[in-house]
Amino acid sequence: MPIHKICILGAGTLGSRVALQSAISGFEVRVYDINQKALDFGQKTMEKILRQLVKAGQLNESQVPEIFSRIQFTLDPSEAVKDADFINENVTEEVDIKKKVWKQFGEIAPEKTLFTTNTSYLLPSMFAEESGRPAKFCAFHFHDVFYSRVVDIMPHPGTDPVMIPMLEELGRKLNQVPVLVKKENPGYIFNTMLMALIGAAGKLLTREVGSIEDIDRSWMVNFHMQMGPFGILDSIGLDTAWHVTHKMPDAASQAFASLLKTYIDQGKLGEKTGEGFYSYPNPIYRNPDFVKET
Amino acid sequence: MPIHKICILGAGTLGSRVALQSAISGFEVRVYDINQKALDFGQKTMEKILRQLVKAGQLNESQVPEIFSRIQFTLDPSEAVKDADFINENVTEEVDIKKKVWKQFGEIAPEKTLFTTNTSYLLPSMFAEESGRPAKFCAFHFHDVFYSRVVDIMPHPGTDPVMIPMLEELGRKLNQVPVLVKKENPGYIFNTMLMALIGAAGKLLTREVGSIEDIDRSWMVNFHMQMGPFGILDSIGLDTAWHVTHKMPDAASQAFASLLKTYIDQGKLGEKTGEGFYSYPNPIYRNPDFVKET
Ligand SMILES: NC(=O)c1ccc[n+]([C@@H]2O[C@H](COP(=O)([O-])OP(=O)(O)OC[C@H]3O[C@@H](n4cnc5c(N)ncnc54)[C@H](O)[C@@H]3O)[C@@H](O)[C@H]2O)c1
Ligand SMILES: NC(=O)c1ccc[n+]([C@@H]2O[C@H](COP(=O)([O-])OP(=O)(O)OC[C@H]3O[C@@H](n4cnc5c(N)ncnc54)[C@H](O)[C@@H]3O)[C@@H](O)[C@H]2O)c1
Repeated sequence: MPIHKICILGAGTLGSRVALQSAISGFEVRVYDINQKALDFGQKTMEKILRQLVKAGQLNESQVPEIFSRIQFTLDPSEAVKDADFINENVTEEVDIKKKVWKQFGEIAPEKTLFTTNTSYLLPSMFAEESGRPAKFCAFHFHDVFYSRVVDIMPHPGTDPVMIPMLEELGRKLNQVPVLVKKENPGYIFNTMLMALIGAAGKLLTREVGSIEDIDRSWMVNFHMQMGPFGILDSIGLDTAWHVTHKMPDAASQAFASLLKTYIDQGKLGEKTGEGFYSYPNPIYRNPDFVKET
Repeated sequence: MPIHKICILGAGTLGSRVALQSAISGFEVRVYDINQKALDFGQKTMEKILRQLVKAGQLNESQVPEIFSRIQFTLDPSEAVKDADFINENVTEEVDIKKKVWKQFGEIAPEKTLFTTNTSYLLPSMFAEESGRPAKFCAFHFHDVFYSRVVDIMPHPGTDPVMIPMLEELGRKLNQVPVLVKKENPGYIFNTMLMALIGAAGKLLTREVGSIEDIDRSWMVNFHMQMGPFGILDSIGLDTAWHVTHKMPDAASQAFASLLKTYIDQGKLGEKTGEGFYSYPNPIYRNPDFVKET
């Protein structure tokens, strides 16, 4: 079954990005949210990204109106899913909200509609049943859509396997690299590895083996990367990292979670608050001297 | 105390690189090994690297003779340490060999000589006493000297703290980024983080969450990197990785060590044997299609 019409639930940070990429890739898109303010935020986000893409030479200014003509914003659930081949749900990361939304849309979506969730840390099996059609339910998880172009396809035990190749094809059409997560795993593949790296960096810091700067330097210089684990943490948000870390039972994670908490309690959540392990907008790790040899 | 004369013990893969960089940076260098074959290997390695540096435009052909004029190869221990300000030991990674070498050179080195070891996984405290001057003993650990320009400075509890700034300065003169490892830690800072990343990748593989290719893809596309954890493992050598992994007590490490063992038993050690997780010289992850979106 070919996918033409895409419905995006939630017009926040990720919903607006997935919707925009869908329109860029030629799909008809409807974006639903619960209030006008959220829809306006989504539209502004898209306009901002489009300007960046034009500036970077990835799109032509003249393509912009056509792209926008493929996107409709609506507060009406029935309008949103009318004739939709595919839903990607991008609502707030809370089990109860997602359950409610899937129950609602499971009842009104056309028979043909495929259901996917962009959840970051929850599992599709937590709300597949609520949708009323678990066999057509799968995680379809983006990273940031435009810079890190990975889409994770993660079925739950009840997902019909025929969905997988369809989602792989859709992922490619959306200009993403599809990655199959063969069984449910919180954090998919990338976040599992990233959290392991960050956990090791946190342990080196709390055990006072190295400074924040030297730990980042080691990673950056060895891999010729722009950021080390603490720079990455600042961009993820220390609150988000704490959320994951403080639930881990081992002593090293607990020690690191406590350290993160001292930053959070001072309002230092990372780049978004102007301060985390580094100070923004000009953190020292972006200074060429930071990794200069001579 | 300024460092002018550098003595390198061991003319193998790393010894020859550290010696060469020292000569490039203007130091007088003596390279010692136990037999002529080893010294010849060292000299050939240096010639090869110099050709690469010239080709890459990092050095001028005309500088080569002068650089080589600063390097002396010798089989005579007393000749090797004569008037040396600094030793960096690069002999085989075995505690007993290193103990023997440090006992030998501790007895004949001038009073002023600073002692350092380039050990990858052992700790300086394991042979500092043998040298007879533990206060002047520290780890000074390179990565690959020319591509990954990090040098770890890791004192043992008996190291005189005055050595640290001297070694930091020397590291910078050797065109490296010095990183202070404040207390003894096997694997320093970078390898600790790398092994955490690799351990997480191994767990995702043995638990059948993702394929080798998809795990690597996730890392490569998200971080715009040339290699993922399994490509990195192939370049490190599966035998080296097994060595570290099989000693870890947790079930996940044990499962991954067993998997590594099945490769090793088939002679698949990675890039150096032409086969590991991928096949060389043209592993599929170097194919642009591997991470292509559309
Ligand atoms: N932010 C990221 O980096 C990122 C990356 C990948 C995936 N995700 C996932 O995407 C989802 C959305 O995250 P976000 O960062 O865009 O959050 P966000 O807070 O920016 O957006 C959430 C949106 O959901 C809307 N919403 C709330 N209740 C709703 C309902 N009942 N019906 C419809 N819309 C409703 C909100 O009004 C808001 O516009 C989450 O599951 C998150 O885990 C986020
Ligand atoms: N290979 C790497 O990537 C790497 C990176 C950083 C550090 N290191 C460390 O550098 C050291 C050397 O590693 P390598 O890869 O160069 O090994 P190698 O096997 O290439 O070289 C070891 C050299 O030590 C010599 N040797 C053995 N016994 C000796 C003795 N009694 N006196 C003098 N020389 C002796 C050998 O003849 C050989 O030339 C090890 O401690 C290793 O952990 C290696």
